Amino acid sequence: MITLASDFGSPYPAAMKGVILSRTDTRLVDVAHDLPRQDPRAGAFWLREVLPYFPPAVHLVVVDPGVGTDRRVLIVEAGDHRLVGPDNGILVPVAERLAADPTYYAGSATDPESTTFHGRDVFAPLAAEIQDLGLESTVEREGFAPIEDVTRIEFPTATIEGAEAIGEVLVVDDFGNTITNIPGSFLDEYAQDSILVDGRQTPVARTYAEVPPTESVATVGSHGNVELAVNRGRGDRVFGLEPGDPVYLAPVENATD
Amino acid sequence: MITLASDFGSPYPAAMKGVILSRTDTRLVDVAHDLPRQDPRAGAFWLREVLPYFPPAVHLVVVDPGVGTDRRVLIVEAGDHRLVGPDNGILVPVAERLAADPTYYAGSATDPESTTFHGRDVFAPLAAEIQDLGLESTVEREGFAPIEDVTRIEFPTATIEGAEAIGEVLVVDDFGNTITNIPGSFLDEYAQDSILVDGRQTPVARTYAEVPPTESVATVGSHGNVELAVNRGRGDRVFGLEPGDPVYLAPVENATD
Amino acid sequence: MITLASDFGSPYPAAMKGVILSRTDTRLVDVAHDLPRQDPRAGAFWLREVLPYFPPAVHLVVVDPGVGTDRRVLIVEAGDHRLVGPDNGILVPVAERLAADPTYYAGSATDPESTTFHGRDVFAPLAAEIQDLGLESTVEREGFAPIEDVTRIEFPTATIEGAEAIGEVLVVDDFGNTITNIPGSFLDEYAQDSILVDGRQTPVARTYAEVPPTESVATVGSHGNVELAVNRGRGDRVFGLEPGDPVYLAPVENATD
Repeated sequence: MITLASDFGSPYPAAMKGVILSRTDTRLVDVAHDLPRQDPRAGAFWLREVLPYFPPAVHLVVVDPGVGTDRRVLIVEAGDHRLVGPDNGILVPVAERLAADPTYYAGSATDPESTTFHGRDVFAPLAAEIQDLGLESTVEREGFAPIEDVTRIEFPTATIEGAEAIGEVLVVDDFGNTITNIPGSFLDEYAQDSILVDGRQTPVARTYAEVPPTESVATVGSHGNVELAVNRGRGDRVFGLEPGDPVYLAPVENATD
Repeated sequence: MITLASDFGSPYPAAMKGVILSRTDTRLVDVAHDLPRQDPRAGAFWLREVLPYFPPAVHLVVVDPGVGTDRRVLIVEAGDHRLVGPDNGILVPVAERLAADPTYYAGSATDPESTTFHGRDVFAPLAAEIQDLGLESTVEREGFAPIEDVTRIEFPTATIEGAEAIGEVLVVDDFGNTITNIPGSFLDEYAQDSILVDGRQTPVARTYAEVPPTESVATVGSHGNVELAVNRGRGDRVFGLEPGDPVYLAPVENATD
Repeated sequence: MITLASDFGSPYPAAMKGVILSRTDTRLVDVAHDLPRQDPRAGAFWLREVLPYFPPAVHLVVVDPGVGTDRRVLIVEAGDHRLVGPDNGILVPVAERLAADPTYYAGSATDPESTTFHGRDVFAPLAAEIQDLGLESTVEREGFAPIEDVTRIEFPTATIEGAEAIGEVLVVDDFGNTITNIPGSFLDEYAQDSILVDGRQTPVARTYAEVPPTESVATVGSHGNVELAVNRGRGDRVFGLEPGDPVYLAPVENATD
């Protein structure tokens, strides 16, 4: 099985599918082709959220603002999963979720003629080859070598001081749910019925529908972090937050009039 | 075969696919993941339009504004089709199209820890189990029981008085075609070359291209209802209509200057 | 294998998938369902870009502003590939890329009752039949006949006079990359480090990331044509160009202050 994830929109992913199916007869599963454009950090977040639910597979990932430059190409062995993509950090968080100690192999583009579409010309053929021949043979045939200095993406860590947390918005999902880097345990520990979000009193609940429609809510999302949402509405708009924005949580006692 | 339909956008559906493929080796077919958000009624319309064209399958449907509340989980037997989704009405119109007398089984969430992503944690595992073990075993193992009081969605009925019809916009499709609840037979019976739509004289035709580009037209859509469209344009914008709006059709003789 | 391409958006493609799977057990691959709406010329460009990467397959293509009129239905034999779609030109450029001398067979809609959804009622059943019985049997059973007068789409040719080129924007991709009809060889031959694009001095590079983020660049895209882009931005917005617009390339010596 090969899964495909990219920021390509449409119809470029079809060229990758054609390339793979021309080389190997395998199942293809689209993960997403609208990952945040040219944003490896957001892509890394989302891949870490969804790929671990798959059975062992080859995961082809192309969010690649450095296409055509000398950035390296990665093949990753993470338990029984294999990942293929650019060495810009996007593969690392999910690899480390899939396995305690993933191995990274780096190589260069195998098609020096292709400067703008490595998804089709470099990454898709590599994924097909791994699916067909296995990681070991591919690494050897394509001249990849194990590396220690993989490019890393680190998500920022929230600062928790007593009952206050200063965090950051990591991503906003398609529902408008605003996902922070503040661990859900913070809410469990410090929040009762409500909490101050950037000074605004907000109910705390286990699920969106515990507050009336159009009301905002702070909850622990399926990813385990604090999420700012609106029941049947968009949290990002109501809270006025977007990825990268700071978020400040404090007890309601701190409210000032 | 398992089909997947949701209002999740992207990339959450990938987590459902991974969960299913981790449990059973079956074909997955994406129906749509951009069903109108948190709108079981519109979803019910679209599922009734497209699922009956499928061969017997397990249909996983997640448009679930009540996720995490005590709304029930449904398994439906509709002829040789099985449906899985929340008990909010979305499954009923398609079930009744697929079979004269579908059987509804209700249960509760099997994963009390999951409060915001039952698509991944509750519905996808159920669909995989039905695909693998069959409906009967799944119903028994998961403690589901037949129910009579399924939550229903009823589409409003148009009122037809002589040559006049008062209806409602049910949905607008991606082309901007505005689909009403007025049966196509009304046009066949009462309209000649044109009709008044909310007082505006509109040609009646069998197909969009019978009128010049950018011209509006009333036609009978593939769903059998009256549809208000614009050849190579968007009917919703030209008619100024959106889902839920009333629509009034009358003979051109009624026109007032 | 059947590939599917359309301008249907969602969820209409699911009805086509259901129709096919009801008739034949084959692999389905989505190419794109957001081809530029009711624009066979742009669709023809994209299909020519992506379908040649596929192994032999039946390619179902529905961008069909003339649905329900007397426009003909085509079956195309292009090497080992088969194509099915409306006779509006969309299939011709890709057919001629797939084979030196494709054969076109024309017929009429097989379902006279269907006036607005031939994708579901005419084209999908035809594709399933070809997949199941082969082209020859399908052509015979459905009363199709070879034709010479297929409807053609010709992409406009750029005019090159010395070191100046007058071309046209063919399409804009999802990244905002603006794809012209000027052959990439023009840049190779006449441009050094930069070129005038509509009078504006623009760096020439082999890949987007050779210029700083948010800077514009003229490059040769994966399709072999001159492409006007912005590194990590949208070329269409920065250059103010959309499909059909003229583009004028000239040497920087021509610049006037």
